[in-house]
Amino acid sequence: MDVKAAVAFEAGKPLEVATVQLEGPRAFEVLVEVKATGICHTDEFTLSGADPEGLFPAILGHEGAGVVVEVGEGVTSLKPGDHVIPLYTPECRQCPSCLSRKTNLCTAIRATQGQGLMPDGSSRFSLDGKPLHHYMGCSTFANYTVLPEIALAKIREDAPFDKVCYIGCGVTTGIGAVINTAKVEIGAKAVVFGLGGIGLNVIQGLRLAGADMIIGVDINNDKKEWGERFGMTHFVNPKEIDGDIVPYIVDMTKKGADQIGGADYTFDCTGNVTVMRQALECSHRGWGVSVVIGVAPSGAEIATRPFQLVTGRVWKGTAFGGARGRTDVPKIVDWYMEGKIEIDPMITHTLPLADINKGFDLMHAGESIRSVVVY
Amino acid sequence: MDVKAAVAFEAGKPLEVATVQLEGPRAFEVLVEVKATGICHTDEFTLSGADPEGLFPAILGHEGAGVVVEVGEGVTSLKPGDHVIPLYTPECRQCPSCLSRKTNLCTAIRATQGQGLMPDGSSRFSLDGKPLHHYMGCSTFANYTVLPEIALAKIREDAPFDKVCYIGCGVTTGIGAVINTAKVEIGAKAVVFGLGGIGLNVIQGLRLAGADMIIGVDINNDKKEWGERFGMTHFVNPKEIDGDIVPYIVDMTKKGADQIGGADYTFDCTGNVTVMRQALECSHRGWGVSVVIGVAPSGAEIATRPFQLVTGRVWKGTAFGGARGRTDVPKIVDWYMEGKIEIDPMITHTLPLADINKGFDLMHAGESIRSVVVY
Repeated sequence: MDVKAAVAFEAGKPLEVATVQLEGPRAFEVLVEVKATGICHTDEFTLSGADPEGLFPAILGHEGAGVVVEVGEGVTSLKPGDHVIPLYTPECRQCPSCLSRKTNLCTAIRATQGQGLMPDGSSRFSLDGKPLHHYMGCSTFANYTVLPEIALAKIREDAPFDKVCYIGCGVTTGIGAVINTAKVEIGAKAVVFGLGGIGLNVIQGLRLAGADMIIGVDINNDKKEWGERFGMTHFVNPKEIDGDIVPYIVDMTKKGADQIGGADYTFDCTGNVTVMRQALECSHRGWGVSVVIGVAPSGAEIATRPFQLVTGRVWKGTAFGGARGRTDVPKIVDWYMEGKIEIDPMITHTLPLADINKGFDLMHAGESIRSVVVY
Repeated sequence: MDVKAAVAFEAGKPLEVATVQLEGPRAFEVLVEVKATGICHTDEFTLSGADPEGLFPAILGHEGAGVVVEVGEGVTSLKPGDHVIPLYTPECRQCPSCLSRKTNLCTAIRATQGQGLMPDGSSRFSLDGKPLHHYMGCSTFANYTVLPEIALAKIREDAPFDKVCYIGCGVTTGIGAVINTAKVEIGAKAVVFGLGGIGLNVIQGLRLAGADMIIGVDINNDKKEWGERFGMTHFVNPKEIDGDIVPYIVDMTKKGADQIGGADYTFDCTGNVTVMRQALECSHRGWGVSVVIGVAPSGAEIATRPFQLVTGRVWKGTAFGGARGRTDVPKIVDWYMEGKIEIDPMITHTLPLADINKGFDLMHAGESIRSVVVY
C-alpha cells in the first residue's frame, strides 16, 4: 500500500515527505494506522548523524499512537480497531530478559531491530522498489507502519492520540525512571538535571511518588516556571551560583539532624557526562542513587573517584524508564486519563506531517517541550 | 598505664615497638585488652604514605579482638570481661545514617575519628607526654586500647581471638559485600577480581549465598588453589587468555537460553580502576551489579560509557561490607563457630608484636593471606 512518510534519506539533511510503499503484516506482525507521533531528541540524534548506529535511508519516529488495521497470522493479543502505542522496547514475556523479572530490556528482537529490520530480517517499507530502514522498531513518521505484536501496547479507546503518543517515549522514560528504576519513596529529596521534556516528566514522577524536595537544575531560567508547573520545589541555575554545583546542592539538602547533606535521588536528563558526574556526587553519602537517563555523545565517558561508590552512592541508568511496555504503558495511559499525571501542557506544538522539519527547528531553538505531528 | 605498641612514627618507615602511655576510658569509652590483631592492606596503605589522610605519629591497626578491662561513665552495653571486636565503622543507632536503615556508615564520630582522635577531640595515647594519633578509631597495634562504646561489637566468649580478629575487617568486608551490598541470590553467576584476603572472603560469601558460578580472576596462578578452597568454580588468569577479559567472561557466563551473557554480580577486590571498569562491563546487560570493594590509589578515577548504565548495569561500592558492626559482627562470629564460614586456613601467619614488620614484609611479598599478631 502507499503511505505518507517523512523519509530520512541522509544524515544531517531535513526529512523529506514522500509517498512510500508499505507491505502488509507477516506472521506475528500488525499493521497500524499512526494517528499522532511526537518528535523526540533521539530522532534528532539519529538524523543529525551523531548516532553511530544510525542507518539511512530510514523512516524515523518512535513515539506514536494509533489504531490496529490488520493483524498477521498468529497474532492473538490484538485485533483491528484496537488502540495501541508502539514500543521501541518490546515485551515478549518469553526471553531470558523478560523472564528474569529484573529488567525491561526484552531481547527477543534486539538484533534485527538494531539493523532497522523486522524480526524476519526484512523491511516492510520501500521506495521505488528499494527498501527503507525501520527505526527503533517503530517508524512512526509514516501514517501507517508495521510492528511486531510484542512491540505494541494496547490502550483504552478514549485516550486522545495526540497526547498519549508522548507516553510512547518521554512520559514513560521520565516517570518510569522515578518509580521503576530509582523507586523513590514518599518524603525523598531529589534533584533533576535538565528540564526538557524528560526532566519535566521526572519532576511529575517525583510529585506522584510524594518527594518532599524536588530541585530542578537548568542553565535556562525560563525552565523555572516549567518545572514549578509540574511540582518542582526549588530551582538552581548553575550559572548563577558561586562555585561548584555539587556542594551547593549538598548544602541545600541539609536538614535538621542530617548535616551531611546530599539528595536521596538524582537524575541526569542532559546527556552531558560532566553533569552525570555532578548528579552522582551530589547524592547522599551512604544511600544516594543517581540515575543516568540522558544519551551521551558517542564515545563520551563518565568518571568519578571510586570513593564515591565505596561511601554508598549507587550509579545506575534507565532505558524507557525501566517500564515493560505492554504491562506498564496502559497503566500510564490510565493515570493520564484519571488526572494523576499531566501531558497536555507539555505538548507545546502540533503540526501536520508536511511541517515535521519545523518540529526539529523548534527543538533546536529550545522553543518546544514537545512537538507532535498529527496525521 | 604503660602499654606495648607498634608505633608508626613516620610514613614509609617500619613500625617501632615501644612502651607508650594510655589514659583510662572517659565517659562512654571502654578500655580493651587487645588479644590479637590482623595486619590489613589498609594499615599498609597508611603506613606507606599513600593515604592522603594518614596522620603520624600514630598507632595503627584496626582488625582486632580482645576483652573489656574497664568501662567509663555512662557505658551500659559492655562490662569488664566481655569479649569484643573493635569497629572502625561504629554503630550508634541514633544518627541520621543509622536511622536511615539504608547504610552502615554511622556518622556519629566520623569527624574526630578522621582526625585520629577520640570523640571528645583528644587522644588517649601518648609517648613522653606527646600525644599519638588513634587510627580508624581502633589502634589495635597496642596490647591495650580505648574505644567508644559504640565502636565495639560484643561477641561470644568461646570464639578464639587469633581467628575472629579477622572478622573485624577482611571477613566482614568480603562476606558482607555479597550479602548486604550485592544481596546475591541462590543460583547467581558471579565474578571476583583479585583473590587476596578480601577476594577469598567474597568467594566464601558467594558459596554461602548459593551462587552457581563463582569465577575468580587473578594474575597469579597460585591463587587458583586458594580460590577453590573456598568455593570458586572457575579460574581465569587474564594474562593467559587471548584478548580482553570482558568478552571472555561474558562468553563464559552464556548459558542455555541466555546467549547475551554477563555475570549477575561482580566484585572488584583489587583497587585497580581499570579492573573496576572491567568488572562493571562484564556484568549482565539489564541487571548486572558491580561492587567496588578495593581501595584505589589517591586521585585515581573510574570511567565507563554511560551506555553501560543505561542498559541496566549498576555500579556500587561497599565499606565494611555494608555491615552494621554491633548488629552483624556477632552473627558472623556465630557463623564461624558453627562452621558456616571458614577463617583458619586464611590465617597463614601468626606473629608476636615484636615481629609485626615481618607481617608487612609477608604481605608485600604476596606470601600471606593474613598475618595475625598475637599479644
